[in-house]
Amino acid sequence: MSLPRYVRLVEVGPRDGLQNEKQPIRVTDKVRLVNDLSAAGLAYIEVGSFVSPKWVPQMAGSTEVFAGIERHPGVTYAALTPNLKGLQAAIDAGVKEVAVFAAASESFSQRNINCSIADSLLRFQPVLEMAQQRGIRVRGYVSCVLGCPYDGAVSPHQVAAVCRELHAMGCHEISLGDTIGVGTAGGVRQLIEVVGRDVPRERLAGHYHDTYGQALANIYASLLEGIAVFDSSVAGLGGCPYARGATGNVASEDVLYLLQGLGIETGVDLARLIDAGSHISKVLGRESASRVARARAALR
Amino acid sequence: MSLPRYVRLVEVGPRDGLQNEKQPIRVTDKVRLVNDLSAAGLAYIEVGSFVSPKWVPQMAGSTEVFAGIERHPGVTYAALTPNLKGLQAAIDAGVKEVAVFAAASESFSQRNINCSIADSLLRFQPVLEMAQQRGIRVRGYVSCVLGCPYDGAVSPHQVAAVCRELHAMGCHEISLGDTIGVGTAGGVRQLIEVVGRDVPRERLAGHYHDTYGQALANIYASLLEGIAVFDSSVAGLGGCPYARGATGNVASEDVLYLLQGLGIETGVDLARLIDAGSHISKVLGRESASRVARARAALR
Repeated sequence: MSLPRYVRLVEVGPRDGLQNEKQPIRVTDKVRLVNDLSAAGLAYIEVGSFVSPKWVPQMAGSTEVFAGIERHPGVTYAALTPNLKGLQAAIDAGVKEVAVFAAASESFSQRNINCSIADSLLRFQPVLEMAQQRGIRVRGYVSCVLGCPYDGAVSPHQVAAVCRELHAMGCHEISLGDTIGVGTAGGVRQLIEVVGRDVPRERLAGHYHDTYGQALANIYASLLEGIAVFDSSVAGLGGCPYARGATGNVASEDVLYLLQGLGIETGVDLARLIDAGSHISKVLGRESASRVARARAALR
Repeated sequence: MSLPRYVRLVEVGPRDGLQNEKQPIRVTDKVRLVNDLSAAGLAYIEVGSFVSPKWVPQMAGSTEVFAGIERHPGVTYAALTPNLKGLQAAIDAGVKEVAVFAAASESFSQRNINCSIADSLLRFQPVLEMAQQRGIRVRGYVSCVLGCPYDGAVSPHQVAAVCRELHAMGCHEISLGDTIGVGTAGGVRQLIEVVGRDVPRERLAGHYHDTYGQALANIYASLLEGIAVFDSSVAGLGGCPYARGATGNVASEDVLYLLQGLGIETGVDLARLIDAGSHISKVLGRESASRVARARAALR
């Protein structure tokens, strides 16, 4: 039951968080958000994605966002790149780390990226090859690791098979996504135990949604299993598209509060992180989904 | 890292949840809530309190509530009784289990119950003696076990001293209350470790507020430490008076969802519990604070 001494937080707010926003968000607001996050001490920020603007109109300005942000040494500014065209655009924008996105559930893969799991992995092959040639690291996302909105339960062995492939193809880290937030701590332990047989635990990250309020318990369970990288989204940006009104990404502030309470180093300043979340929430015209941010605001 | 096979949920919604409500709530609505909760399978429900209506006007109708509810065999219908007068009123209402309320922090004790911790324990002495004579079990609440809104940090040894006293005085169970919800999993583990030296762990319960979103992680940490009784409030009833807009009691639905995911028996039916919370939320004219209830509602 020992805990890691250091945890790396992967801030996904600017990309995963904002991508489902219906209202247009100005490039300057996105740039400000990324700069606020790096000023708060986050060393890994997912800034945008290079996908067809037909699919994700909110991410159309990613080239401009990358051009506008301050780049600090030691901070990774990453982008999602589903294909070679996206990777080329990311390289042109000076991106040094990219991510590809697969699903652990066949139905989700079909409905979300319009192809089978096997086909999606085939499509990523040239992306990973070209990235390797250019010295660009690739992170792999796997969604629906603890349940699928269409198929229901997802076997950890099915998840492990996809993770193993991505790892073998060269992904340096695999992020395990509980896309609909249905998982609980017991399932998380089992998942890490099974996936950990195929991919070293230091190569795994937890990406948990808080839809059922379970994300922090799942992170605590993961920490006890030796996981030391977690994805989170400032102010809880990014509602879950499958549960309107329900929360999606776990709020970075809440994760940081937990980690600080456990005495785990992250390099992130909570007050500055809350300020970053407060500002983007104002831009979006809504209350932060972070409980810590709300509690701190109520104390004032 | 073994988990208990069975957990007893102590439902505090009708008392701890509703007591801070500003709007008047009809006795019939409170009776309906208690009946809904027992129908959902909860075996321990804190129904009301026998305190001065000057202090807590919302609890003035507790005698009528106890007279109106259905009483099922095997279900404990409890009441808070701060003094002999309250205990006598509870006995007259047919109550078989009562609770007393102390604080682990001197400042909180002074401001919340207008006396020192030592004086509060002296006041409970005759309550416990009379209860024992009448064959009534007494539960002890200790507040501010992981932090105080006035004093800040609270030492686990200070908490242990109060718990030891209450246990020695005859309380069959001590509920450890994180009244302002500031605790995290590491502090919870340490607390249980320290208090557990003075009071057997099977006599301890966790009462965690979700103000900073930590309650379920704290419950998971407690389960791993062998705690098998948790207080919670349906629909998360009971905002935190020290943090307006912030959540207070952890929602019973969210706790139950976690326990079910862990394969732990509770005897409680989630769908009926959600219905109970949905009804009282409608009565109060607001959205449930339970994430599970919101997520399930969004799926419909």
